[in-house]
Amino acid sequence: MNLAYPWVRNPIIVSAPMRLIALAPLAVAVAKAGGFGFLAAGTDTGDLKAELERARSLLQKSPIKGVDPTTLPIGVGFINWGTNLNLALEAIKMHTPAAVWFFAPKQNEDLIDWTEKVRKMTGGRTKVWVQIGTVTDALHVAQACDPDVLVVQGADAGGHGLAQGAGIVSLLPEVADALRDIGMGHIPLIAAGGIVEGRGTAACLALGATGVVMGTRFLASKEANITKGYQDNVIRTKDGGLSTARTGVYDILRGITGWPDRYNGRGIINQSFLDSKNGLSIEDNKTLYNEALQKGDEGWGENGRLTAYAGSGVGLVKEVVSAQSIVEEVRGDAMETISKLSQALSKL
Amino acid sequence: MNLAYPWVRNPIIVSAPMRLIALAPLAVAVAKAGGFGFLAAGTDTGDLKAELERARSLLQKSPIKGVDPTTLPIGVGFINWGTNLNLALEAIKMHTPAAVWFFAPKQNEDLIDWTEKVRKMTGGRTKVWVQIGTVTDALHVAQACDPDVLVVQGADAGGHGLAQGAGIVSLLPEVADALRDIGMGHIPLIAAGGIVEGRGTAACLALGATGVVMGTRFLASKEANITKGYQDNVIRTKDGGLSTARTGVYDILRGITGWPDRYNGRGIINQSFLDSKNGLSIEDNKTLYNEALQKGDEGWGENGRLTAYAGSGVGLVKEVVSAQSIVEEVRGDAMETISKLSQALSKL
Repeated sequence: MNLAYPWVRNPIIVSAPMRLIALAPLAVAVAKAGGFGFLAAGTDTGDLKAELERARSLLQKSPIKGVDPTTLPIGVGFINWGTNLNLALEAIKMHTPAAVWFFAPKQNEDLIDWTEKVRKMTGGRTKVWVQIGTVTDALHVAQACDPDVLVVQGADAGGHGLAQGAGIVSLLPEVADALRDIGMGHIPLIAAGGIVEGRGTAACLALGATGVVMGTRFLASKEANITKGYQDNVIRTKDGGLSTARTGVYDILRGITGWPDRYNGRGIINQSFLDSKNGLSIEDNKTLYNEALQKGDEGWGENGRLTAYAGSGVGLVKEVVSAQSIVEEVRGDAMETISKLSQALSKL
Repeated sequence: MNLAYPWVRNPIIVSAPMRLIALAPLAVAVAKAGGFGFLAAGTDTGDLKAELERARSLLQKSPIKGVDPTTLPIGVGFINWGTNLNLALEAIKMHTPAAVWFFAPKQNEDLIDWTEKVRKMTGGRTKVWVQIGTVTDALHVAQACDPDVLVVQGADAGGHGLAQGAGIVSLLPEVADALRDIGMGHIPLIAAGGIVEGRGTAACLALGATGVVMGTRFLASKEANITKGYQDNVIRTKDGGLSTARTGVYDILRGITGWPDRYNGRGIINQSFLDSKNGLSIEDNKTLYNEALQKGDEGWGENGRLTAYAGSGVGLVKEVVSAQSIVEEVRGDAMETISKLSQALSKL
């Protein structure tokens, strides 16, 4: 399935709308490399207009060939449970992003209003992407909203996602079959969760995805809005399944409330996590967390306490490079992986 | 990487040594279809000689072409923490299975003795497969034993595995790179966990695997030694990520003790699991479990209490067919998936 974004090359490489981290420079750099870049509105639409203005200005300095000048060739990610729809619509109206990405509404039904109003606001030029993590939600959202894209997030993803769910290897094919069975197999599926390089991308294409989203990999991009402490933590971490965990404790320590019950976040295991597991009170853990905050970059790491959300693919992320090199490397490696595999199998 | 088993076709499709379920009929049927079938010794070697004798007798009735008559063209899976090495060696000596599969030793070092003695016992004709679930264990085992195969198990696997770990999408590439970096990239990797059909198999080949193991899919084979209640439960279950969970409660209810701390099992969520989560005492839960045991096949299911270990791919398993059809379908679909994908990408 092809997505008709003129500047986006196949297989589609998407940068995730990571709250506070994926801002205009990252989204624009990914777009310029022929990927699909999302900036994060998160739950706070206060800065959104300014951030879209920044993206527009970056793009005016060096425009992307073939992009309709009335559309901004990047997307905006919303965390729906905490976002004011009207404020979001104002920003969308002003800048016509090529896509919005919805995630974590209080209930799936809330997305009907969002979808209709966004589509109406820009005459369908802003496409609607919706992230889901179960087959049940995929069917529900498909029937309620007929989204232009479903982002299928497996349990290996970093940051917030469903506390309980399958990895992409079984989730994506089951979603694809279930959508086909209700006559909605036309919706392109973009795979997320644990994908950081070409092999994972090739694997997801084999599973039936049109493209992939990467978050963790772009944490180690030059354009990410990320502290050195967090980025170093990502680069140093090995054995991603063992060194990351899904937990609610990082939200608690950071005072973040409002996530619907079924969500938590995957982050690199640190002292805050281990102390919490060993029974330290939230109060004492918060005190230690706040002390760590004063340490700046030193506050992160195995022995640190500051949150480094990352997916289980973190062990494959080894250096900080430009977003452009990431997009080009992953896209190229994915194609080469499939081509070599096909040749090897044809000789059997 | 090729594994020189003359009756096994590439890409290699392996049936997992599921305790009590994967016995001689399943292992032999998989071998006859050009796959690699394992029978489960589990922790109980008491029946192993008889089971290997049964396999030999099934194979004598209709031999597989090209198999060295001194080797039994199936493998035997051991759960090492609970198995007596000397009893295992006696059975291995008597029947020379083509492979042993080691899983869950008390400590990785224990596998050194096992590996050396098995290799010596059959002059290297019995190959040593070792299952791991982290990069750390892969490196440890590779350096300690230089196994003939590493089975890389992701967190989506059904039955026992590491309580904490990554899905195959990130685990397999990180293991592959880590082995390459220490000069042990020659060890073939077989992927396990969440793989039930051709797309998942193709995906794992793209990740760098030589083949795949399926357990859950073979629960729905005619040759599996499984109750109708359990098998029906597998067939009916949808949305595998939501309807299965990793837990230690099923072991507790069944009185199974001895698994090292870091292991638990993924099974279909049932009333036992939910009651335990909601705080029912183990004692009361056991009483209800024992009552359910009396119900036979009715004891399984969403509202049942008997354990149905299954991986997160269970939602893709829809009918009971022969092991031969499973092997042939999955192998064929995997090759077709790659071939079609390669054609589609070459047109970009």
